[in-house]
Amino acid sequence: MGLQVAVLGATGLVGGTMMSVLAERDFPVDRLVPLASERSAGRSVVYQGERLTVGLAEPEAFEGMDLVLASAGGSVSERLLPEAARRGAVCVDNSSAFRMDPEVPLVVPEVNAGRALEHGQRRIVANPNCSTIQLAVALAPLHERFGVRRVRVATYQSASGAGQAGVDELIGDTTRTLLGQPEEPEVFARRIGFNAIPQIDVPMPDGDTREEWKMRVETPKILGAPIEVHATCVRIPAAIAHAEAVWVETESPIPPDRAREILAAAPGIEIADDLEKGEFPTPRDSAGTDAVRIGRIRRDPTVPHGLALWVVADNVRKGAALNAVQIAEVLAEHWRRSGRA
Amino acid sequence: MGLQVAVLGATGLVGGTMMSVLAERDFPVDRLVPLASERSAGRSVVYQGERLTVGLAEPEAFEGMDLVLASAGGSVSERLLPEAARRGAVCVDNSSAFRMDPEVPLVVPEVNAGRALEHGQRRIVANPNCSTIQLAVALAPLHERFGVRRVRVATYQSASGAGQAGVDELIGDTTRTLLGQPEEPEVFARRIGFNAIPQIDVPMPDGDTREEWKMRVETPKILGAPIEVHATCVRIPAAIAHAEAVWVETESPIPPDRAREILAAAPGIEIADDLEKGEFPTPRDSAGTDAVRIGRIRRDPTVPHGLALWVVADNVRKGAALNAVQIAEVLAEHWRRSGRA
Repeated sequence: MGLQVAVLGATGLVGGTMMSVLAERDFPVDRLVPLASERSAGRSVVYQGERLTVGLAEPEAFEGMDLVLASAGGSVSERLLPEAARRGAVCVDNSSAFRMDPEVPLVVPEVNAGRALEHGQRRIVANPNCSTIQLAVALAPLHERFGVRRVRVATYQSASGAGQAGVDELIGDTTRTLLGQPEEPEVFARRIGFNAIPQIDVPMPDGDTREEWKMRVETPKILGAPIEVHATCVRIPAAIAHAEAVWVETESPIPPDRAREILAAAPGIEIADDLEKGEFPTPRDSAGTDAVRIGRIRRDPTVPHGLALWVVADNVRKGAALNAVQIAEVLAEHWRRSGRA
Repeated sequence: MGLQVAVLGATGLVGGTMMSVLAERDFPVDRLVPLASERSAGRSVVYQGERLTVGLAEPEAFEGMDLVLASAGGSVSERLLPEAARRGAVCVDNSSAFRMDPEVPLVVPEVNAGRALEHGQRRIVANPNCSTIQLAVALAPLHERFGVRRVRVATYQSASGAGQAGVDELIGDTTRTLLGQPEEPEVFARRIGFNAIPQIDVPMPDGDTREEWKMRVETPKILGAPIEVHATCVRIPAAIAHAEAVWVETESPIPPDRAREILAAAPGIEIADDLEKGEFPTPRDSAGTDAVRIGRIRRDPTVPHGLALWVVADNVRKGAALNAVQIAEVLAEHWRRSGRA
């Protein structure tokens, strides 16, 4: 007994990781259908040791599917997910196309798992932006206990946030820098090797980038609370895992020791926080892990109720593929209990 | 007509840059005396095309010196600068040894040049921490016009902040990472290649690092105002130039356009701020420049009077060697006018 699962964007970095995570977590797959655009259809991918041919992503391909995990970009999702939904599938979409749609739930299972079932007639559940997911996991337990009012976050985002092409450009540019060779950046706005680029996604009218706007609007939607968030999003020459320097202001007093205990007990969080012993998370030691890893928890003494922390997660896994599969697990469990699958 | 100038720590990255900057700026040097510890004395350095032998840094070496530019670490400065001062020299010290001494001025010439003359009997002027200098240059004009009350800053600090050994470890570790080879970090707490390390300098009792504490205590001393600063300091795999994501809260309303104008007119600042045109400073395009370069100036909408900005400067030049030479210029100009030199 299992589900008919399509992975849209199966040849991409996130799509490939979705298939790995489905296999790792023994997701109840009866048949897995990898799909991609014309450019990549016909290639093969491996799922649970089996070689599968990637099908063309067209409306008919979704016939008979129970579930679609999509990571193929906003315009592809906008075009194809309504077609998949019309054919009866529920879609978990990693693009930004539907995230702020009031009829589409925006879900981080550790925070608001139940919302995944409220996909209504749209039959779409949106996966938040990678930087937002790890922030939301960290904020939710603090909000529940102390009432989070205001958040500033500076991000340290890895090249894999721009997919495999981003990782390739990081490695290529770094190598050419070491060799003293010139390079024209294509994926990033500047040479990424040995640099820090304060621009991710396109400009918005208020001077923020779209990535910064996403963190600002998605966080309150996920937490269901009017939390004010301001972000500065920066690409750094890390390959995998995003880090965030976060300042939180709360309604109640927020002693660092108590905050650490509460975070340690919360789902999906791992604490690495002992500066004396050199314990703190970094991107390199967080790549490939599932947890949102938190360290450098301390008082922000500039306000009465302030906390500073450092939040790291694998952006390809928890920031994208894993979170999508966790949403799919919520759906699958509901269907199992309700006797559908 | 010129000055007898000793450079203490002449074989280091900052010391070497001090000599380049003295030459570039035609500082009135009559004789330049490079000094270093036993480990490096006897080596030769080049000043204005001339090969000079590095002398041993011992008290007698300061006999007859007018000025000492020191970048040899705190314990060396603590031991030797009082000896140099006793022999009549004025010392500009790049270490953290004397910065918070109430009798030692802490100077960023764009902000508080006049203080350099108030070195009194100590005859020591302290050069602030690299991350603090660029922050102070950016904050001073905003403080004068809008009254800065509160600052949060997340840093993106380059490997050269740990000297030549830091740059060497960055290049070595990056290369070995690309080759899939193991590496034991020596300079940094973790492998620095493709990583971000949220720990610079030693832990303090309140959970901040000493680098973060420096920014918190040095900034109010330089600006002469009780500005509350909280920092998260992070080493990233850039070679030269530190970047900072800064949030500022002010007493008066601070419209981004007005802040940009005021910053553009302030000394030592260069604005690169047009997101639509892809203009913003990055470490790579700021390495080797003298200005504090500012972009991403925009409203922080989470507070009534909030501004966010991105501040980049060459940490070896403006963050250390250049700032020290600018202080020396203030002293030399004063001596020239008062007929001493």
